[in-house]
Amino acid sequence: MTRSNSDVSDWWSTSIIDMAPGQIRFRGHPIEELIGNVTFPQMIWLMTRGDLPTPDQARLLECALVAAVDHGPQAPSIAAARMAVTCGLGLNGAMASAVNLLDDVHGGAGEQAVELYTWIDLAVQQGADVQAATAAMIDRWQAERGKFIPGFGHRFHKPEDPRAPRLLSLIEEAAKSGVVSGRFVAIGRATQKELNTRKGQPVPMNIDGATALVYAELGFEGPLARGLFCLSRSVGVIAHAWEQMGQAERNKGPTPPQYRWTYTGENPIHEAQE
Amino acid sequence: MTRSNSDVSDWWSTSIIDMAPGQIRFRGHPIEELIGNVTFPQMIWLMTRGDLPTPDQARLLECALVAAVDHGPQAPSIAAARMAVTCGLGLNGAMASAVNLLDDVHGGAGEQAVELYTWIDLAVQQGADVQAATAAMIDRWQAERGKFIPGFGHRFHKPEDPRAPRLLSLIEEAAKSGVVSGRFVAIGRATQKELNTRKGQPVPMNIDGATALVYAELGFEGPLARGLFCLSRSVGVIAHAWEQMGQAERNKGPTPPQYRWTYTGENPIHEAQE
Amino acid sequence: MTRSNSDVSDWWSTSIIDMAPGQIRFRGHPIEELIGNVTFPQMIWLMTRGDLPTPDQARLLECALVAAVDHGPQAPSIAAARMAVTCGLGLNGAMASAVNLLDDVHGGAGEQAVELYTWIDLAVQQGADVQAATAAMIDRWQAERGKFIPGFGHRFHKPEDPRAPRLLSLIEEAAKSGVVSGRFVAIGRATQKELNTRKGQPVPMNIDGATALVYAELGFEGPLARGLFCLSRSVGVIAHAWEQMGQAERNKGPTPPQYRWTYTGENPIHEAQE
Amino acid sequence: MTRSNSDVSDWWSTSIIDMAPGQIRFRGHPIEELIGNVTFPQMIWLMTRGDLPTPDQARLLECALVAAVDHGPQAPSIAAARMAVTCGLGLNGAMASAVNLLDDVHGGAGEQAVELYTWIDLAVQQGADVQAATAAMIDRWQAERGKFIPGFGHRFHKPEDPRAPRLLSLIEEAAKSGVVSGRFVAIGRATQKELNTRKGQPVPMNIDGATALVYAELGFEGPLARGLFCLSRSVGVIAHAWEQMGQAERNKGPTPPQYRWTYTGENPIHEAQE
Repeated sequence: MTRSNSDVSDWWSTSIIDMAPGQIRFRGHPIEELIGNVTFPQMIWLMTRGDLPTPDQARLLECALVAAVDHGPQAPSIAAARMAVTCGLGLNGAMASAVNLLDDVHGGAGEQAVELYTWIDLAVQQGADVQAATAAMIDRWQAERGKFIPGFGHRFHKPEDPRAPRLLSLIEEAAKSGVVSGRFVAIGRATQKELNTRKGQPVPMNIDGATALVYAELGFEGPLARGLFCLSRSVGVIAHAWEQMGQAERNKGPTPPQYRWTYTGENPIHEAQE
Repeated sequence: MTRSNSDVSDWWSTSIIDMAPGQIRFRGHPIEELIGNVTFPQMIWLMTRGDLPTPDQARLLECALVAAVDHGPQAPSIAAARMAVTCGLGLNGAMASAVNLLDDVHGGAGEQAVELYTWIDLAVQQGADVQAATAAMIDRWQAERGKFIPGFGHRFHKPEDPRAPRLLSLIEEAAKSGVVSGRFVAIGRATQKELNTRKGQPVPMNIDGATALVYAELGFEGPLARGLFCLSRSVGVIAHAWEQMGQAERNKGPTPPQYRWTYTGENPIHEAQE
Repeated sequence: MTRSNSDVSDWWSTSIIDMAPGQIRFRGHPIEELIGNVTFPQMIWLMTRGDLPTPDQARLLECALVAAVDHGPQAPSIAAARMAVTCGLGLNGAMASAVNLLDDVHGGAGEQAVELYTWIDLAVQQGADVQAATAAMIDRWQAERGKFIPGFGHRFHKPEDPRAPRLLSLIEEAAKSGVVSGRFVAIGRATQKELNTRKGQPVPMNIDGATALVYAELGFEGPLARGLFCLSRSVGVIAHAWEQMGQAERNKGPTPPQYRWTYTGENPIHEAQE
Repeated sequence: MTRSNSDVSDWWSTSIIDMAPGQIRFRGHPIEELIGNVTFPQMIWLMTRGDLPTPDQARLLECALVAAVDHGPQAPSIAAARMAVTCGLGLNGAMASAVNLLDDVHGGAGEQAVELYTWIDLAVQQGADVQAATAAMIDRWQAERGKFIPGFGHRFHKPEDPRAPRLLSLIEEAAKSGVVSGRFVAIGRATQKELNTRKGQPVPMNIDGATALVYAELGFEGPLARGLFCLSRSVGVIAHAWEQMGQAERNKGPTPPQYRWTYTGENPIHEAQE
């Protein structure tokens, strides 16, 4: 809608929401027709993609959102959220501090896995054999982006991340029923096989690699997949922050204070007694 | 689970998640049993509250989550998110900058409405008539917290916020079917009536007042309700940030740059030509 | 300066900065006349207060800024900054995550101490004896704001915080030379005396109480004093984040991962071996 | 200092600060010997670099810190800070939201300019002619990093950014007196010359290019230079946020609300009257 001084009205431009006094439409749908008629995952899809997914597509998205909600107080994001409320922040500030940490290394793995899968998919669409394309793109990833292949292996979960096999089987069901094409499932399997071979032992797909398969099959691009991961992980962030609010600690640091830290610099203090 | 040096293992303590290599349980439920079997709102409830809601309870929560996702680029949070991506941030950083702004004035209204409704409810539980309790607690709110009554009125939406009547009718249905008690619905109506009388004209319930009714009926405390509002609003944040990423602007400020700002200080610059 | 559509040019209004192509004035001073001619503390004062301080005033401000830069990796803000860079954030993101945590409990003590001192000062200006006013306002603080008196005592530093006596002696020198009035120094001493008496043992002024004395003497209001504390603490934040960047860890959590956490919830996992 | 369970004490390791009850040393210096004896820029250098700068080095650093403090409410970071306080945030939250936006595009130019200058410097150290090295590295930058050369040109300031010439003359003085080597000044001049030639018109050095010269001459690496820019810009952020706090607006959006935005999506609302 335009007003005089269209350069000011044009400064912000969006196809997501239209508003007039008493009216709100999201992607063309009046909000009162959406509330109570679409699920939260359907709404997430509608807002980010512009159209409504089928119920099956929405359910698959929902699986990925449920799967990634939390990984405990050892995750930097969760630790930051818990410390934040002991500093006086409300859940919005705790969530902000935490989600900020879901960056390239902590939350970016899913985005990067989508990117790697997409490189392989493009090669396959151009005629390459999926296993060969996978090997080539793993090489390219390591040359351009570094040695860590996103989506596989886990520092903690041995033999494997329990969230990945479950997600994989749900994606495979969805591929069988034609909800998704299944071509990224094939890519995921090929990547798994290639990495196991190169390593000489299993490097099982983890939560990032598995949710990335869901997002790639459903057509969500990498940077948007990171946003969805943040939305999912925010659930754990809020839960932990809320729980910490009830624990009445003040200014809680990362470790029990008596352990302090190791000082490696000049002119250390020599305490009289240890 | 404990390790040696239990004071370090005890430093972070939670009833939300238990983990061992290859195993993750949320509130006692193995994650692989949750993925594909619970909805995202059910997962949100489980993580924040500790138990699983009934399907009806989860659906009502879902209505509130869907209702509050966005209010357009004029909202400070959305503006911050859109500017953030033009500064180079990914969706996590955009989300963090935006959600941080959902504080007392921008995102706290729902939390405050829950608090006001709770004051009234306590008085009613102690025997007061609901309309009288409502009048008394509005007076108390204005004396202690300031003149703005959270949850009612809207600067933009006239005659009313289109999200509120729809949510209200869904809550009323839920009360009729016994999914919720309905005692906060009565409080909501009483508050509406009291404010209309005092103002001499309608001050209709807005999205914050309506979602607060949902959260109060479902037993979510105020500060947690703020967290849920942040989760909901994050959907709009991500959608707008993702859209802005595709608009290839750099360092986008709040208004078209030629309008600059009004300088009200000393020794202003006199430009040769305007 | 105005442009057509003055309602857009008026939307943002400031007395801090005026700009035209090729010209920038801060509080009326051309920037090229400030660079190399004013110190950073003088610039901080000019920007936040609107006028230039005397060199003596600026030096006293500088003492407070230097004093509060860091308190080590056990501080939640520093821990958050260090974890942030291991998650992939740059120094801006690390600084943002950290400074966000300098809220009511972690960074607000200085602001609150300024507020308490100001209550006492108002009573004294109205004729009360300083010791009596101090006792009355400590009572008022505890009744309205909670039991913790901001600015005194320290969980770690015994017998006292080493930063406070040094700052106090510098403020006392400044009072003797007439750079500041000294009336807040008297209030600080009275508060110290009152708390020691009530506790039956020393509750020495800490960094927050001491910097608050500087800010109060120099005329900085409480909320602005919090901003100055954030500026000071940002130096430590940047230093720690930069150092951590050189330590090549990925996704660093708060404690060594093998300590995990204590699970207090339902249906715990029983691991085969501990 | 070590405690039992050195793996916990070792988890955080730093050469910046050592602490014991009643004692704090920064880089080996007791804090009480620093307060009142070093300037804030000297402290910034000590904390980030580990040693104390000479007074001349500290003064040159101070020039760069003073120069970059603010660029007005049109800067996304400043707009975010001003909106933040109208949403209820204190100065720490406003500063956090704002500094987060000083990312690759908004705050990263200084870091990137240091990087470009360093590429050129390395080539010169290996024997290349400075003008030839400059041309080669500008080509390399555009091939690898994109078309925008950091540190030169300005969307608003014509004929040039008033902060750059002043800083340049101060760096040149410092080079003449031997405070710095001057080899980056030569690189800056060569870059200016090359860009003017390629563009066919002046592309004057801006604040980012000029402060980057200071940081490179003084030995601050790129990512740390970004941190210093954030510290400097935080002064403007705090000033604007504090000023906005006194303007008593609630939930202030980016433009006057009646301008709304342009909706480009499906099924737009047709309002009865415009």
